Amino acid sequence: MEKIKQLALVGGTHGNELTGVQLLKWYQKHPEEIQRSTFSTTTLIANPYAVEACRRYIEKDLNRCFTEAQLRSENSSTLEEARAKEIEQLLGARASSFRQDLIVDIHNSTAHMGYSLIFGQLDEFTKKLCAHLSQKEPNVRLYYMPEPDLSSSPYLPSLAKRDLCLEIGPQAHGTLIGELYEGARRLITALLDFTEHWNQKDEAPTLFPVTIYEHYKNIDFPRNAQGELNGYIHPKRQGKDYEPVRKGDPLFRLFDGRDVLWEDEQTVYPVFINENAYYEKGMAMSLTLKKDELF
Amino acid sequence: MEKIKQLALVGGTHGNELTGVQLLKWYQKHPEEIQRSTFSTTTLIANPYAVEACRRYIEKDLNRCFTEAQLRSENSSTLEEARAKEIEQLLGARASSFRQDLIVDIHNSTAHMGYSLIFGQLDEFTKKLCAHLSQKEPNVRLYYMPEPDLSSSPYLPSLAKRDLCLEIGPQAHGTLIGELYEGARRLITALLDFTEHWNQKDEAPTLFPVTIYEHYKNIDFPRNAQGELNGYIHPKRQGKDYEPVRKGDPLFRLFDGRDVLWEDEQTVYPVFINENAYYEKGMAMSLTLKKDELF
Repeated sequence: MEKIKQLALVGGTHGNELTGVQLLKWYQKHPEEIQRSTFSTTTLIANPYAVEACRRYIEKDLNRCFTEAQLRSENSSTLEEARAKEIEQLLGARASSFRQDLIVDIHNSTAHMGYSLIFGQLDEFTKKLCAHLSQKEPNVRLYYMPEPDLSSSPYLPSLAKRDLCLEIGPQAHGTLIGELYEGARRLITALLDFTEHWNQKDEAPTLFPVTIYEHYKNIDFPRNAQGELNGYIHPKRQGKDYEPVRKGDPLFRLFDGRDVLWEDEQTVYPVFINENAYYEKGMAMSLTLKKDELF
Repeated sequence: MEKIKQLALVGGTHGNELTGVQLLKWYQKHPEEIQRSTFSTTTLIANPYAVEACRRYIEKDLNRCFTEAQLRSENSSTLEEARAKEIEQLLGARASSFRQDLIVDIHNSTAHMGYSLIFGQLDEFTKKLCAHLSQKEPNVRLYYMPEPDLSSSPYLPSLAKRDLCLEIGPQAHGTLIGELYEGARRLITALLDFTEHWNQKDEAPTLFPVTIYEHYKNIDFPRNAQGELNGYIHPKRQGKDYEPVRKGDPLFRLFDGRDVLWEDEQTVYPVFINENAYYEKGMAMSLTLKKDELF
């Protein structure tokens, strides 16, 4: 099985998501905590300007700046587009081969995401890593967002052969919640230990039963003709990420008191419910489909 | 007893605190909901520039711009200082008398404030109103922040004879949580109904037993010599607003794992624990003292 030689831990891709910002500051002062014998680990605070300002971004969402088209463009009209090119220099271009075998990018959400592992690849290492971590902490969820063409992906971790976004919540942006910080630190330790073990072992692979949530589609809030909010996440749905929504279940409540129901036959499992940063992106929640798999 | 003739409902003093923003938008479209027969109610979205940007403020915290010194200064170096003077024109100056008998300013916090009524005056109307509302909703808390000299108060509601800040949480700024929106709307209705009743009745005043939390002092996060965070709210304290902290109880945990304890003999009741906007103000929580009173 293919070994992991080079791994990058990234925080501060969004400057107000403090779990990753503070973990990366800690790791940069205490590199021994993330050192292992069989692979190298690079650390990066991705958007230090936004970290300084404690904002998601200064001019443009950095985590939408990594398509090949943007990385190859001659001009960088925003601070973040320029920073994306610097990060490509630091972590290595996709090009013919990837310098990073895995990038782990640590994010926060105001949604009740627990510790969601969002991954785009289904290679053996990613699958076994996800299966392993989902057994280590009770609130780990596996959110599969297929990324068939990395060159058109706008996300930072797509610079690596394998991408993993650790999405932690609920935590208000610009705040740090101790329990989530400590849980994330335990998970990163478990991830590094697993990678060390993976590199050292020569075991026949075992299959683990896992539940994954595969991305289906995003839906927006109810809005009026001017694009303004016309309602809110239904009180019965708020905080209920990864719970089933069946035909007839409420999704939203309009300001005039009427409820908006899910009308599809397809049972869905919403995530990113009421994520602050997605109001401006026209997303009230992402819908996923629940699947039982062997990883 | 003195009647209430003029009341102002204010939201959007901070542009990303959406309960007040959305309630005020609703009331401005449906003025019949807040009309009563014995008094007038004015509505105001205080910082429309910040509402548009969905930020707390553009240049300066508007809710720190209302001291007499600032309102009388010749120059307004920031957008918010200029807006404070406009608001004084709209709602009336303190001067010899107050145009508003009561201003109710609706705020949100990322802290677990429930529905906190923050008041600075101890007149009969304020006391009876607070006592009444605390019996209407289970999560209402009475937070007394003495304001002996209104002219040196920087807060918007201090433009009125009586000030009431409705502080609602936990809610991440820039998001709207339906349950809290609906609860706030019920509370405002109860407040207006109580005021109507107050103006109409001629009953002998009854005394109600209440628990109030009186402001004691603010404390900051542990920080290093550069002023950076050196730890976080202790996991046992997070979300425990209005719960007692006794000598020896943990307040913070440092990044190196050591706990910071409360060393005073005085039992305190923290509020505003982990409020996002107070990181920049050097406040991790406010400490209060619990008192049983007859209102």
